Amino acid sequence: MQNFSYYNPTRILFGEGQIASIASHIPAHARVLVTYGGGSIRKNGVYDQVAAALAGLTWFEFGGIEPNPRYETLMRAVALARLERIDFVLAVGGGSVADGSKFIAAAARFEGEPWDILARHAPVHAALPLGVVLTLPATGSESNGFAVISREATGDKLSFGSEHCYPVFAVLDPRTTFSLPPRQVANGVVDAFVHTMEQYMTYPADAPLQDRFAEGILHTLIELGPQALARPDDYAVRASLMWSATLALNGLIGCGVPQDWATHMIGHEITAEFGLDHAQTLAVVLPGVLRARRADKRAKLLQYAARVWNRADGDEDARIEAAIVATERFFESLGVPTRLAAYGVAEAAAAPAKISARLAAHGFKALGEHGRITPAIAGEILAARL
Amino acid sequence: MQNFSYYNPTRILFGEGQIASIASHIPAHARVLVTYGGGSIRKNGVYDQVAAALAGLTWFEFGGIEPNPRYETLMRAVALARLERIDFVLAVGGGSVADGSKFIAAAARFEGEPWDILARHAPVHAALPLGVVLTLPATGSESNGFAVISREATGDKLSFGSEHCYPVFAVLDPRTTFSLPPRQVANGVVDAFVHTMEQYMTYPADAPLQDRFAEGILHTLIELGPQALARPDDYAVRASLMWSATLALNGLIGCGVPQDWATHMIGHEITAEFGLDHAQTLAVVLPGVLRARRADKRAKLLQYAARVWNRADGDEDARIEAAIVATERFFESLGVPTRLAAYGVAEAAAAPAKISARLAAHGFKALGEHGRITPAIAGEILAARL
Repeated sequence: MQNFSYYNPTRILFGEGQIASIASHIPAHARVLVTYGGGSIRKNGVYDQVAAALAGLTWFEFGGIEPNPRYETLMRAVALARLERIDFVLAVGGGSVADGSKFIAAAARFEGEPWDILARHAPVHAALPLGVVLTLPATGSESNGFAVISREATGDKLSFGSEHCYPVFAVLDPRTTFSLPPRQVANGVVDAFVHTMEQYMTYPADAPLQDRFAEGILHTLIELGPQALARPDDYAVRASLMWSATLALNGLIGCGVPQDWATHMIGHEITAEFGLDHAQTLAVVLPGVLRARRADKRAKLLQYAARVWNRADGDEDARIEAAIVATERFFESLGVPTRLAAYGVAEAAAAPAKISARLAAHGFKALGEHGRITPAIAGEILAARL
Repeated sequence: MQNFSYYNPTRILFGEGQIASIASHIPAHARVLVTYGGGSIRKNGVYDQVAAALAGLTWFEFGGIEPNPRYETLMRAVALARLERIDFVLAVGGGSVADGSKFIAAAARFEGEPWDILARHAPVHAALPLGVVLTLPATGSESNGFAVISREATGDKLSFGSEHCYPVFAVLDPRTTFSLPPRQVANGVVDAFVHTMEQYMTYPADAPLQDRFAEGILHTLIELGPQALARPDDYAVRASLMWSATLALNGLIGCGVPQDWATHMIGHEITAEFGLDHAQTLAVVLPGVLRARRADKRAKLLQYAARVWNRADGDEDARIEAAIVATERFFESLGVPTRLAAYGVAEAAAAPAKISARLAAHGFKALGEHGRITPAIAGEILAARL
């Protein structure tokens, strides 16, 4: 096992009715900025629950944070936060709202040009305290210190992370997810699945417990993902899905193990170039990375085949291919295609070269746990996923 | 899944060499009280590593915290902490030192009679900040807010817990465990195993991920426990054992699920009455609880038999008995007997009545996840474990 430091101070408030308790976790005299996305929370009752919970507090609101939250939008919220002397941000929504709100919280207290937080990894020394009311299980952002932000003007999609950006609390009420469109539910399952794979599917590192935990998340997603789509108001299913997505990226399963993240880096460029949903890019790229790096990942691919897909016998290469095909079929069964063609991308044949060039332009010279995926190899991977 | 709140702010510093980093997690002008046990840390080099790491800080020491740490001993440390105006406690040792140091940290800032924290569950509103350098993987105390304290004068063994008693940091350096006596290593494996079982072996609660995580810990302990005894200086084995013991009782696997803890409550009385090691009592009692409550626990016993002991076929009652026998054999294989007779207890035949009376005297009317284990039933359970 590799040395590691693990720290996650986010208080998880899990279950139905927990939104009502948030005021007890916000300073009594705080001026609160409630941030949200496209307005679905106004239709499903979550906005009203939050408003009721904040009764008596001074609060403002900023809606319209989009999927792949944009720097330009967020900077308007930063201006509002400074104008109204906000001292607590309450993000109500999914991973994009949580990510965007982390940037708002950090930028509002940043001295200098906030863009540097993303473009130059300028250190974040402080941030407004942040709470999250999660409505879409997927990214794990509700319980980590990371965020991914896009800039419309340049087409960049960049990340930052800071210990100051861990939410103080995260409310996970499975009922808030009942009204999600199937596409978002499916995306969330794929996202959590690939988050887990990025931390698991590398090479053996004397970390049997981390492996078991990761496999536990994968099993749970495989079992419950289809059920969540079939029965949107099944509380038990939505509850375990929500908890699985949080644990897939709260830092725990990545403790002491090598990590990959090539699929995410390639996927980010696909979203920026072609506008696919984040999870759609992951469903396209992951099988390609697994096949291209099957030599590097051989031992773990065999373990994955045996423990997750029950393929423990027969020719080893056949087992590995069967596990990758099973992964593709799982994504497809959720309604998330695994080939670029299915998304109607114009001039798809040019995609590998475009994505390769984008990665190079962003300075990614060598992705993956061994640093062996160059932009050129990323292009080859994508060429096999058209 | 049941509603829950999960909060664990302890920073885990894992791996060899991490002791050297502790000063960066202690306030620069803190007056530190280093607490430890019987002095093994002076022989295995840990004391010297801690002293080197604290160079430049003002620190004091208090040794001699015994297994099942005693109120009487700890109150002497509280007096020292007050006299020297201590503002940080650094516990160096196993669960007993960590537990005792939590009490020291809470009692030093308690207004009133500190015994009330244990005897009357007086609320703890503040505590000195606490760090832990762990040398014995077992109790999980390094990353939770709980402690169990004994009082010599009365023979009581009582617990308390507070959010203020979470260690600020916990150093887990597997090398500190190389010199442990086999008995302590084996006890630690049994302790972590039974902690996991207390949170897992109840009834199904729509919590498939918690089940998978618990089973992952059990698998890891079963696989690595014997290896840790066979090869005391195998870093990889000790590392995963250490991480497993922490995760068995840092609150995570108990989120949203029913819990038992009858084995622990009965075990505490056996330690108080007969002086057995904590883990020894667990090895004796757990199989008895499983057999006595097999009707209540039937579904989970079958799941345990199938997933942990690979017994998924044949008569259901036979599968359950086989899983319980496998559990007993696992403990015995580590050198931890599962019958009271093996510990040379005088007048063992009177033990069930004695333990039953002790539970009743401590006000335990109904233990277990269903509250169905009365002191009389606890006596019956023990009568089957002589």
